[in-house]
This record gives sequence, structure tokens and C-alpha cells, in this order.
Amino acid sequence: MNFSEQLGFLLEMDKLKSVYRKALIKTDNNRYENSAEHSWHVALMANILAPYAEQPIDIHRVTLMLLIHDIVEIDAGDTFAFDEKVILSQQSDKEQQAATRIFGLLPEDQRTFYLSLWQEFEIAETADAKFAKSMDRVLPLLQNMQNEGGSWSENNVSKQQVINRNKHLQEIAPKLWTYVLEQIDIATEKGWLRAA
Amino acid sequence: MNFSEQLGFLLEMDKLKSVYRKALIKTDNNRYENSAEHSWHVALMANILAPYAEQPIDIHRVTLMLLIHDIVEIDAGDTFAFDEKVILSQQSDKEQQAATRIFGLLPEDQRTFYLSLWQEFEIAETADAKFAKSMDRVLPLLQNMQNEGGSWSENNVSKQQVINRNKHLQEIAPKLWTYVLEQIDIATEKGWLRAA
Repeated sequence: MNFSEQLGFLLEMDKLKSVYRKALIKTDNNRYENSAEHSWHVALMANILAPYAEQPIDIHRVTLMLLIHDIVEIDAGDTFAFDEKVILSQQSDKEQQAATRIFGLLPEDQRTFYLSLWQEFEIAETADAKFAKSMDRVLPLLQNMQNEGGSWSENNVSKQQVINRNKHLQEIAPKLWTYVLEQIDIATEKGWLRAA
Repeated sequence: MNFSEQLGFLLEMDKLKSVYRKALIKTDNNRYENSAEHSWHVALMANILAPYAEQPIDIHRVTLMLLIHDIVEIDAGDTFAFDEKVILSQQSDKEQQAATRIFGLLPEDQRTFYLSLWQEFEIAETADAKFAKSMDRVLPLLQNMQNEGGSWSENNVSKQQVINRNKHLQEIAPKLWTYVLEQIDIATEKGWLRAA
């Protein structure tokens, strides 16, 4: 343990509060959401919806993944899920470099642990990471449904894009998938998502 | 489980993003911090600093307490720790009512669980709750030290007030207490805290 390194990491975290996403906060004059408050929301959401996970999950690991999943954005910025101009391999390189620098602020044992947890989330092959990632993808849908389409309407997103982004939910949490499909149909009828 | 109740609770959570605290975010043009991003920061901090806990703690319970500890502010508002005009018993009544309403949005099993976890945090008698609360009190100190006194300077806070607020740390995490005392001395020398 090295307290001054841990402190440096924790103070660096303040910067995530100035990384803004495309999601709009209806309850705060439709300002953009930042990645720190989003991380709080999705970590709490995972705990509330954990009973729907089809596979056994370790909810503490899921929670911790979600608390750290976006901190690479301090260096790499937020990428809108449906932005077709982003070259994914370039963004991935930037995020890997960010992870090395930011988790590198921690003492060695914690650095190794958190870097590996972040990579597990990114690769999304374990049950914990799949569940965490599905929460991260469903939350903006819930927010957009409350907000006349929110970031979908603003960015001309199609029904099929949202289906593709969430379809893994079918195996991860089937009951939630049924609900999500219904919401996508409603959003399309209302014109918040492009039908084609 | 009742999905529509859980969803109602999760959407209600968006409101915590518009509850503003006295802490300033130096990395975002010194705007005020909101309670949602604060809750993220302190939940992550508890995980990073858990090795300093003097008593055994269940870090998942601590994390979950910190994710929900401020949600009563959706109804009751944030109270500045050093505001002497606040009548604590009245604020406590408001928060109890808020807890009943907000956790009451959840299905019965989760309502009981989260309400009891929130009360445990408030009472702060268990090792988990004591550690969680100490994290919630130390984080603003770290932020103020980075920010020329931040909310202390703005509100004319004294050295003794900050000592009183953090002194339980001596038994909860002695190594952190030593650091905090040093920081309080530095802040007083710099004039960020009133000496008397």
C-alpha cells in the first residue's frame, strides 16, 4: 500500500466529472450527463436488477467494474455509442493507453487488480462483465424513453442500431430483453428511432 | 420482484444529479458538485482505501451504503456539514420521510433491505457504516486541499469543526487520521481554515 499513490489516483478521478456524454438529464434542465454521475447510476442499477441475471454473478465485482468502466474517458473522451465516424480500433488504442496511465497511478497490487477488472469489462466474456456491460447499454435506453427519445432523436439513431446494441440481453437477462424490445417498438412508433 | 417498481425507482434516481453540494469541482470550472457524482467518487474511494480499515469490513455493503447514502436528498436537499443554521432534528425528520417515500418505490424485499442499509449508515454503529461514513467525511477534505480551501474558505469553517467532524477516523483508520491531521494543520497555516 502506498497512500500517496492512492490519493493521487482518487484526486485524478475528479476529472471524470467533466467528461460529458450525449445523454440528457431531464431533471436538470436537459443538460448533458457526465460520466461520473452515469457511473453511479449504472452501478446502483446493476444492484437493483441483479436478480434478473440468468447466470450467477458476483455483484461486488459487477459493481466495481461499473464504478471504473468509464475512467479511461479522462484521457480518451466519451464515444457516443452510435457515432459512425469513430474508428473503433483507434478509440480502443486510446483507451488502452489511458488505462495504463490512469490505473498506473495506483500502487502495484491495486494497479494490477483494477486494470485486469477493466479489461475483463471491455472484453465482456465473463458472466460478470456481460451483465455489467448490458446494464451500461440499457440505462441510456431507459433515460431516452423518459425524454422523448433524448440522445436517439438528437442523433438520428435507428431501431436496428438499438436492437444490435442490446441484443445480448436476450441471454444475459431474458426478462429485461422482452421489456427492451417493447420499448424499442414504442420509440419507433413515436418517431424517436428511425424505422429503417 | 416487480420490474415496473424497480424501473420507477431507477428513473427517480436521475433527480440526484440535480442536487448540488457546496463542494467545488476544480476540474470543471469550479462548478458545484452534485450528489450523484459525489456518491460515485466516495464509493470508489472506499474500495481503494478499504485496506486501511482497522476493523474487518464487508466492502460490498460499504459500497452499496455509499451508493445510496445521499438519495434522500432528492426530497430533503443537501445539508452543508458546517451549516450552523440547520436544525439537525428537523433535517433528520425530513430525511426519514424522504427515505420512506423513495425506498418505498422499490418492491417490498428490496425496500426493506435498502431502507435498513440506509438507516445503518445514518446510525453509524456497525464497522461497515462507520467506515462508509468516514469516507464520506474525508473526501471533501481531500477536495478542499486541492482547491485552496474550497468549501471551507467559502463558508468560514474552523480547524476545530473539521477535527470534530473527522476525529472518529482515529479508531476507524488510524493511518488515514494521521494524514488528515497533517492536512488540517496545513490548511490552517494557509488560512483556508479559521484557527479559532
